[in-house]
Amino acid sequence: MHAYRTHTCGALTATNVGETIRLSGWIHRKRDHGGVLFVDLRDHYGITQIVADEDSPALQVLDGLRVESVVTIDGEVKARSESTVNANLPTGEIEVYARGITVQSRAEELPMPVAGEQEYPEEIRLKNRFLDLRRDKVHANIVLRSKVISSIRRRMTDKGFTEFQTPILGASSPEGARDYLVPARMHPGRFYALPQAPQMFKQLLMVAGFDRYFQIAPCFRDEDLRADRSPEFYQLDFEMSYVTQEDVFQTLEPVLAGVFEEFSGGKTVTPAGEFPRIPYAEALLKYGSDKPDLRNPLIISDVTSHFEQSGFGLFEKIVGSGGKVRVIPAPNTADKSRKFFDDMNNWARQEGFAGLGYVTRKGGEFGGPIAKNHGPERMEELYNELGLGPDDGLFFAAGKEKDAAKLAGAARTRTAEELGLIEQGCFKFCWIVDFPMFEYDEDLKKVDFSHNPFSMPQGEMEALETQDPLDILAWQYDIVCNGYELSSGAIRNHRPDIMFKAFEIAGYSKEEVEANFSGMINAFKYGAPPHGGSAPGIDRIVMLLADEPNIREVIAFPMNQRAQDLMMGAPSVVSPKQLRELSIRTVEQPKASEAEKVRVDQIGE
Amino acid sequence: MHAYRTHTCGALTATNVGETIRLSGWIHRKRDHGGVLFVDLRDHYGITQIVADEDSPALQVLDGLRVESVVTIDGEVKARSESTVNANLPTGEIEVYARGITVQSRAEELPMPVAGEQEYPEEIRLKNRFLDLRRDKVHANIVLRSKVISSIRRRMTDKGFTEFQTPILGASSPEGARDYLVPARMHPGRFYALPQAPQMFKQLLMVAGFDRYFQIAPCFRDEDLRADRSPEFYQLDFEMSYVTQEDVFQTLEPVLAGVFEEFSGGKTVTPAGEFPRIPYAEALLKYGSDKPDLRNPLIISDVTSHFEQSGFGLFEKIVGSGGKVRVIPAPNTADKSRKFFDDMNNWARQEGFAGLGYVTRKGGEFGGPIAKNHGPERMEELYNELGLGPDDGLFFAAGKEKDAAKLAGAARTRTAEELGLIEQGCFKFCWIVDFPMFEYDEDLKKVDFSHNPFSMPQGEMEALETQDPLDILAWQYDIVCNGYELSSGAIRNHRPDIMFKAFEIAGYSKEEVEANFSGMINAFKYGAPPHGGSAPGIDRIVMLLADEPNIREVIAFPMNQRAQDLMMGAPSVVSPKQLRELSIRTVEQPKASEAEKVRVDQIGE
Repeated sequence: MHAYRTHTCGALTATNVGETIRLSGWIHRKRDHGGVLFVDLRDHYGITQIVADEDSPALQVLDGLRVESVVTIDGEVKARSESTVNANLPTGEIEVYARGITVQSRAEELPMPVAGEQEYPEEIRLKNRFLDLRRDKVHANIVLRSKVISSIRRRMTDKGFTEFQTPILGASSPEGARDYLVPARMHPGRFYALPQAPQMFKQLLMVAGFDRYFQIAPCFRDEDLRADRSPEFYQLDFEMSYVTQEDVFQTLEPVLAGVFEEFSGGKTVTPAGEFPRIPYAEALLKYGSDKPDLRNPLIISDVTSHFEQSGFGLFEKIVGSGGKVRVIPAPNTADKSRKFFDDMNNWARQEGFAGLGYVTRKGGEFGGPIAKNHGPERMEELYNELGLGPDDGLFFAAGKEKDAAKLAGAARTRTAEELGLIEQGCFKFCWIVDFPMFEYDEDLKKVDFSHNPFSMPQGEMEALETQDPLDILAWQYDIVCNGYELSSGAIRNHRPDIMFKAFEIAGYSKEEVEANFSGMINAFKYGAPPHGGSAPGIDRIVMLLADEPNIREVIAFPMNQRAQDLMMGAPSVVSPKQLRELSIRTVEQPKASEAEKVRVDQIGE
Repeated sequence: MHAYRTHTCGALTATNVGETIRLSGWIHRKRDHGGVLFVDLRDHYGITQIVADEDSPALQVLDGLRVESVVTIDGEVKARSESTVNANLPTGEIEVYARGITVQSRAEELPMPVAGEQEYPEEIRLKNRFLDLRRDKVHANIVLRSKVISSIRRRMTDKGFTEFQTPILGASSPEGARDYLVPARMHPGRFYALPQAPQMFKQLLMVAGFDRYFQIAPCFRDEDLRADRSPEFYQLDFEMSYVTQEDVFQTLEPVLAGVFEEFSGGKTVTPAGEFPRIPYAEALLKYGSDKPDLRNPLIISDVTSHFEQSGFGLFEKIVGSGGKVRVIPAPNTADKSRKFFDDMNNWARQEGFAGLGYVTRKGGEFGGPIAKNHGPERMEELYNELGLGPDDGLFFAAGKEKDAAKLAGAARTRTAEELGLIEQGCFKFCWIVDFPMFEYDEDLKKVDFSHNPFSMPQGEMEALETQDPLDILAWQYDIVCNGYELSSGAIRNHRPDIMFKAFEIAGYSKEEVEANFSGMINAFKYGAPPHGGSAPGIDRIVMLLADEPNIREVIAFPMNQRAQDLMMGAPSVVSPKQLRELSIRTVEQPKASEAEKVRVDQIGE
C-alpha cells in the first residue's frame, strides 16, 4: 500500500464500499457526536467524511489534533445510511471508518480559519497566504486561472502560434509607465529594466521571420496600485506577420470566445465571428466611451440640432458656441419620483460635471424645466425621432463635445444600473476600431499622435501625404468585454519611410526619430514583414470569469496595495556587501517595518 | 485574394500546379540565368522558387532588390521539369512564375548574411539578432525550444499537474547565488530580488494544498557567465504532495523520456521506468563523479587492497596512510604507443593532479613501472579480478579518497574519449540517490550539512536521534543525462521538529533556525503535507536535444557573456529622475560603452 494514499479525498464513491483504503489530507472540520468523531478530511481534490468510533485507535489521536493538521487515515469504506447521504459531495455516498492514523503534521492554533465563509482583512490573508489559499473560493480562483491559461495556450498553439520566452532583464525605456530597474553589477552606473510588455521583442521576432508569436508574458509596471492593478501582471501577448487587421480579429475571436465559453459557467458569450466592430467616433457618440459595456442596452443620441434654436437658453448657448447636446433614455420611468432625477443630477455634479439635465414623461406628459422651456411639441418631435415612448424619461448631457460625451457615457452607465437594465449572465465583446492617428493638442497648439505612434496609418504613405492629418485613421484597435478594455493592438508601421513621415507630421525631425527609436528603425531596414497583434490581459480575463473585482483574488501570491509581500518579507533591507557589488547607495535609511520581522529563506535547486 | 498570401512558402506542391497564388516572404537567394531570375522566397514555413522571366513585370523590381527584402509575389504555379525537381525541398516539385510583385520592405546592405553556413562573431550576431534568428540552425533551435516546452507542459498537465505563476518580484535571500535586486520605490532603502528559483513558493503551494504544481519558471542568478550559463534561465519546476522519492521518479521519468524520444531525432533514450538509481557513494566509486555519463562504458574499480603490500612503493605508501587506488581500464590498447600513456599522465598533471599511473599490456605481457614493481603474477591476479584481457591497458589514480575518485572520474572520461568509446546517438539517464545528509567539514572541524539542509533525512527523527550523523542519508537526488546534471531534487523536510534537530546536529540553535528560516518554519506549523519535487533545467534539455554546447544558441534573445543586450542597449544609463524616485545613487559614473549608441524604444500595449 502506498505510504500516503490509495485514493484522493475526492475519489471514493459507492463502488468502493467494502474496500480497505488509505487517505491523506487536512482536518477540515471535526464534529463530536458523543463518543463518535466525524472528521471532514480535505485535500486538493475533495472532502471525505471520516468516522472514528469508540473502537477506533484514531479517535483519541483525532480528538487531540487541531483542524488543519495533516493526517493519514487507514480505513474501510462504508455506505452512508440513506438519510445521511450528501448529494452535494462527490464522496457523499460513503464514509470511511478509521482503523489507523498517522499524524503527518500537527497544526498550531490558526491565525485565520480555513473552513467557512468568514471574510478576513486582506493583510492577514496575504501574510498567511498559505492558509488563505486553502479556502474554497480562492483555491478555486487560482485553479481557474491555471485552467484558463492552459486553455489559451492550447488554442494559440492549435492556431499555429509558437510560444517564445522574451528577456525579463531588458532595457529601460523613456516611453510608457515607470520601469522597475535592476542595477547591473558588471556595468556600474547602468541598469536593466523589467519589461512593461515585450512589445519590441515580439516585433523583432516578426522581423526575424517567426510568423506567429505568442507568450503568456509577465509584465511589470512600477505604478501606484489599485484594486485592479498588480506590479506584476500577465498578458496573452501575440503578434502575426503578413496580416491585416481583420486577420487579427478572426484569429483572436475564437480564442477569446472559446475560453470564455469554456469557463463562463453558463453565461452567454458573443460568438466568435460576431464581435461587433465599432468605430472609435461611433463609440464615443453612442456609448460615451471607447470601452462600451454592451450589456447596457441604452444608446446615447446626439440631439444638438434640436437646440440650435430653443426656449431652453442654456442649451441654445452651448450649441451656439459649438457644443453638443447628448441624450440618454431612461425607459419606463413614469413611476420614478422627482428625487430619482434630481439624484442623478446631484451625482453628476459630485463627479465634477456641470450637471445632468432631464425630461420626465408620464403617460405622454412631459415634465421638468427643459421640456417646459423647449416646448412639448418640439419635445414630442425629438421623442419621435429617438423612438421613445410615453413613459420614458430622458437625461441631457450638454457642453463641449468631449465633456458632453464623457458625461453622457457616465450617465448611460448609472442610468442603466439604477434601472437594473444591465443584462446579467453574459459576456459581450466588441472591437473598437478606426482610432484617429493624430489629434490636435490644445495646450501645445499642434498636431500630435493621439495613441500609438508606431501603428500603421490607414492609407499608409499616400494618406500621410494627401489627407488632413486629423482625418487620418490608424490600423489600431481595442478589444473590450463588458466595459473592460482587455487590450489595445495594432497593425504596426513596419516602414521607416512612413514612420519618418508620420513623426514629421507630429513635429519630430528624422534625426530625432533616428536618435530615439533606432532599435526599431534599425531592425526595419533589413526586410520587415507587415505585422500586427495585441495583448489581452490574462488577469483581467480571469477576474471577469471568476467575477472578482480585485486582481489579488486571482493571483496566487499577490503583493498588497503597498507593493509588499508580507509573507516573504519583500521588499527587504539587503546587506552593504550586496549594494557595494552593485555600485549603488541608498539615499534614505529604511524604516523598520512589519515586513522586517518576517524572515525569508530560499534554497534553489 | 488575401492582401499578402494565399499560401505560405512551404505549402505548394504538385497538386497546386496551374493555380494562381500569392506568396510573401524574404528574398533568400537570387540567381540570374541570363535574363531569367530565380529567387528563393523564404518565410517561417519554407522556401519556394520564384521565376521571373523576361516577360515578367517582377523581373526588374526583383533585380533591383537586395536579398532579405520582403516582397509579395502574384504568380502561377508550374511543375518543374524532371531534371530540376529538388527532392530535398517540400516545394521542390514546383516553381512559381511571377506575374506581379509588391515590395513590402526594402533591405539595405546587411551587416551579416542570412543564407549560407558561414560563422560570424557572436557580438555581431547578437547585435543583429533579428537577422541571426533568420538563419536555418538558430531558427530551428528556437522553434525546437518552443516545441520542447509545449510538449513538457502537455505531459505535466496530462499527469494532473497544475501550472502556477509565482512572483518574479520576491525577497532577497542570504542563501544561494547572488541575487538580482530591484529597488522598491515605495519603500526607500529596500529591495526586491528576482527569484533564483521559486523554491519557497512551490513548497508554500503544497502547504496551501494544491497537490501537484509545475511551472516553466524563469530564474535569475547574477553570476559571472560561461558558455552554459545565462543570467535568465528556465526550469521545469515541479512539486508534489503525499509522495515518496520513488513517486517523484515514476512521475518525471515518462516526462523526460517522452520529451527526449519526441525530439531526439532518432537517438535512443533510456526508457521510462528504467532510469538506473545509482547511490551517491557508488557513483563516486564507479564513475568518479556524481554526474556520470553512462554512454561511457568504462567502470572504475577500487584495487586498494592489492597494494597494501606491493613492490610499487608509492602506492603502498598511499594505501598505508589511508589513501585509495582506483583503476580505469583502457581496453584494446595493445597497439597504442608509449606516448599515448605518457600523454595521459601529462594531461593529468596539467589538470593539477599528481599524475596518472598506467600498466600496458600486449598479448598478455605487462609493461610500465607499476607492473614491473608490483610483479606480473600479482598484476595477473588483479586483471583476472577485474575481468580484463591480454590487450587491455590500465590507468591508476591514487591518493586521498576524494582526490583519487576525482582523478579517476576525469581519466575515465578522457580515456573513453581518446579511445572513441563514448556511445553516440543516445541519451542515457540516471538518478543519483542516497546523498549523505551531513559531512565532516575539515576546515571548521565540525559536522555540517553536505547538501540541502531542507531535505528530509532518511529515517526521519529516529535516524537523527540514533545514528552517526555521517551515516545518515537524505531523500535527495539528482537527475543526470549524458553526464550533465539536469537538476537536483528532494523529498522536503516538512516537520519543524525534525528540522530543528537536523540543524542542531549541524551546530545551529533553534533560535538561529527560527530567526533565519521563519518563513518556511512558520508555514509548516499549520499543517504541512509531506512533499517533494525537482526542477530540471529547460535550457540544458534543449541544448542536449539541439546538440549545442552554448546556451545562447537556444535562447531567442540572449545577453552576451558580459550580460549585455547589444541590440536593445541593456543595461543602460537611466535618468536622474528615475534614480531619485528609487531613493538610490550610483557610486560610479558609467563609462560610455557600445551599448550606449543603441537606443531603445518600447511602446507597450
